Amino acid sequence: MAQEKKLVEAITSMEEDFAQWYTDVVKKAELIDYSSVRGCMILRPNGYAIWENIQKQMDARFKETGVENVYMPMFIPESLLQKEKDHVEGFAPEVAWVTYGGGQQLQERLCIRPTSETLFCDLYSNIVHSYRDLPKLYNQWCSVVRWEKTTRPFLRSMEFLWQEGHTAHATAEEAEERTKQMLNVYADFCEEVLAIPMIKGRKTEKEKFAGAEATYTIEAMMHDGKALQSGTSHNFGDGFAKAFGIQYTDKDNQLKYVHQTSWGMSTRIIGAIIMVHGDNSGLVLPPKIAPIQVMVIPIAQHKEGVLDKAYELQKRLAVGYRVKVDDTDKSPGWKFSEQEMHGIPIRIEIGPKDIEANQAVVVRRDTREKIVVSLEELEHRVGEILDAMQKEMLGRARTHRDAHTSVAKTYEEFKDAIANKPGFVKAMWCKNEACENKIKEDTTATSRCMPFEQETIGTTCVCCGKPAKVMVYWGKAY
Amino acid sequence: MAQEKKLVEAITSMEEDFAQWYTDVVKKAELIDYSSVRGCMILRPNGYAIWENIQKQMDARFKETGVENVYMPMFIPESLLQKEKDHVEGFAPEVAWVTYGGGQQLQERLCIRPTSETLFCDLYSNIVHSYRDLPKLYNQWCSVVRWEKTTRPFLRSMEFLWQEGHTAHATAEEAEERTKQMLNVYADFCEEVLAIPMIKGRKTEKEKFAGAEATYTIEAMMHDGKALQSGTSHNFGDGFAKAFGIQYTDKDNQLKYVHQTSWGMSTRIIGAIIMVHGDNSGLVLPPKIAPIQVMVIPIAQHKEGVLDKAYELQKRLAVGYRVKVDDTDKSPGWKFSEQEMHGIPIRIEIGPKDIEANQAVVVRRDTREKIVVSLEELEHRVGEILDAMQKEMLGRARTHRDAHTSVAKTYEEFKDAIANKPGFVKAMWCKNEACENKIKEDTTATSRCMPFEQETIGTTCVCCGKPAKVMVYWGKAY
Repeated sequence: MAQEKKLVEAITSMEEDFAQWYTDVVKKAELIDYSSVRGCMILRPNGYAIWENIQKQMDARFKETGVENVYMPMFIPESLLQKEKDHVEGFAPEVAWVTYGGGQQLQERLCIRPTSETLFCDLYSNIVHSYRDLPKLYNQWCSVVRWEKTTRPFLRSMEFLWQEGHTAHATAEEAEERTKQMLNVYADFCEEVLAIPMIKGRKTEKEKFAGAEATYTIEAMMHDGKALQSGTSHNFGDGFAKAFGIQYTDKDNQLKYVHQTSWGMSTRIIGAIIMVHGDNSGLVLPPKIAPIQVMVIPIAQHKEGVLDKAYELQKRLAVGYRVKVDDTDKSPGWKFSEQEMHGIPIRIEIGPKDIEANQAVVVRRDTREKIVVSLEELEHRVGEILDAMQKEMLGRARTHRDAHTSVAKTYEEFKDAIANKPGFVKAMWCKNEACENKIKEDTTATSRCMPFEQETIGTTCVCCGKPAKVMVYWGKAY
Repeated sequence: MAQEKKLVEAITSMEEDFAQWYTDVVKKAELIDYSSVRGCMILRPNGYAIWENIQKQMDARFKETGVENVYMPMFIPESLLQKEKDHVEGFAPEVAWVTYGGGQQLQERLCIRPTSETLFCDLYSNIVHSYRDLPKLYNQWCSVVRWEKTTRPFLRSMEFLWQEGHTAHATAEEAEERTKQMLNVYADFCEEVLAIPMIKGRKTEKEKFAGAEATYTIEAMMHDGKALQSGTSHNFGDGFAKAFGIQYTDKDNQLKYVHQTSWGMSTRIIGAIIMVHGDNSGLVLPPKIAPIQVMVIPIAQHKEGVLDKAYELQKRLAVGYRVKVDDTDKSPGWKFSEQEMHGIPIRIEIGPKDIEANQAVVVRRDTREKIVVSLEELEHRVGEILDAMQKEMLGRARTHRDAHTSVAKTYEEFKDAIANKPGFVKAMWCKNEACENKIKEDTTATSRCMPFEQETIGTTCVCCGKPAKVMVYWGKAY
């Protein structure tokens, strides 16, 4: 039993210290390891396999909307980065600079991409000539570097993996439509696959992307009530096109500027999966994203026929599910706690008595419910259980979020909510940045978004009392 | 007709200037574009889609052998790079250095990975403790940077995409077995999927990887007779383990060093596909790797029913093949030459007369053979034609290679062959590096490999006349 306890005892409980619980889980579930480079993490097989599944499923959704993948260089010459004023101001302070290459000092230093707007614009200025060349719907999967002072696995690291889509369109309307379309692709993916409900909305001027006309965002609530910005989609209008000279000859023979968008989602979303679904035994992965969905654990595996039966179940289930047998020489108890720590949605316990009774014990990771299943019905029942788990995980996350969302009509209510009720606060705002700044200073909360689904919860700004223009979700954020 | 001609006329013929033909094809087939960063290329959708297919199929083959994917940081601290003496000597001259980050000069400069042996060793030294932790079979898909003076698309660029596998084993035998296993995975993939026959062998001491005990290689012959090193697999023995202190407690309770391997294949292989199979109309893609296998081109598409029929054929073929309809407003002739330039294996021409006769004209890209196919048999016949094309492309490449491989018994024969017969030269060698250097100086040819399949074509070194130890493939290389 000493062995069994070790794995779980090694993690701090989430009620005691959520931040430490998070760090313990990412390490004990072997998602990441720290590297010799400050602020850079190593994605180990368990962590990378989650990203591979995200990538595969998101990529298919992108391609359904006509997106094509490309790969751009990781370097941006300093002069190119500086072409769009707001953009360079936003990113220059946090980039890494290459100054030497091949033993020589470079004539112009190169930054490592913090994002690739400038490179895509440079490309588009070369390959877009006519309305026939539009739209361009390019995306790339790559890593980017942002020189962060404090880092946390998945949530904020100096280098991280992401995808960045960059599109160019003939009209402003088309660009706006694409910006929203991709936000919806993100939100649908997060809800349907990751079981994480999202608030969709627009960022305030203060919080929008450097160089964008409008930034749309999906915001999720973690188990501790904090917000996590999970994906963003930007409409650039023709700002970048003017800075980079991206023009096309339209059907009417007029030279016009293109309208552009960009949108990105990163390994940060793995942090959301952990912090929305995890518990004090470790990770809980939604079945649709779990690299292993079913772990078959033989009981008394030294007894004749047990391992063979376990492999037989694996073979049967492998037709429809991602399934493995834990046939190591560890004790069943240790195997259970590993399966729980790794968040594998279902374990199937099969021992001599089960074989005799032609049954197996199926244990759900999220509820720990033990379900005795006749072996005849195994495939069917496993499917049902995984479907139920996927659905109920989303339901629980939504219930948790709604239960931790409050409404504030006065500044007293607002401050009290932020201080004492972890979660989102819905409140009206006058759209004056001064109020946004004051709220941040007074409470550390920031505007998460101006949701597309507006509610009229008052007529005056929760901060200054002047006429309100919009309802905003506020919260403390990662 | 002027329009039709333009696309093909834009490329130099391969007989006239092979290097220029190559550059023209990569550009006109829209595989790459040049970027604002010297020596870095942009992989456009047509080029990246080939890499995606390579990645998907290779990754599946890796995973079948138990390999797991990870992601390591792109930065290597200078002190870490320096831990293995031969390795740092090999790579330090061609790395890029980051010296500033977040507005400040770094205390220790970071190189951008030219390869990641040092990072994997650092990780393994942290996570390998017991024989139970072995083997570790990790791989990553990423980009690496090597500061090259002269660059060519796919063949040599400052940044390129690749995969790098890094494994750690309990015994020397297991490491040697894995090194050869992965070389075979590469060779089989190249022959079965890319239709490129490979010579498998071992690199000489002079040509082996910096820090390796042995480097195995697969070498292909391009249409101009030059060699292209297409993939390598290295056995490190315990050299890196000793430098990085990677030890494990074995079953006998003794502390032992692990034995390691690494193996990599890059976007360079796309250069091989172009230079082995291409012709004066552009790219010719083997069906198994072609992002689009069939292009349906409607003839007189303004006539009633033509486009509908084209979409119907697309829908039927989409069940088993990657198929598109070119329904743009370009002329059929222009569409034909685009399909040919892009190397799409099959085009299907369908016009009013074909519809009336319940047939279509299928044109093979490689032989240009026109095959009239009854629409009833379409799926079946397309499958047959693609299979035949795949098989015959490999056969032709093998015939070409064998016809351009000569045997030299004397140094006169050797020099004559290198000077006048583009291709490989098989000749005996004494294993003395002085001869290897002299041959390079006299002829510019290098040793490609000591093939696993040895032949006895003489008893004395072709260069110095002393007793020979091994037969070597020599050739001029990219």
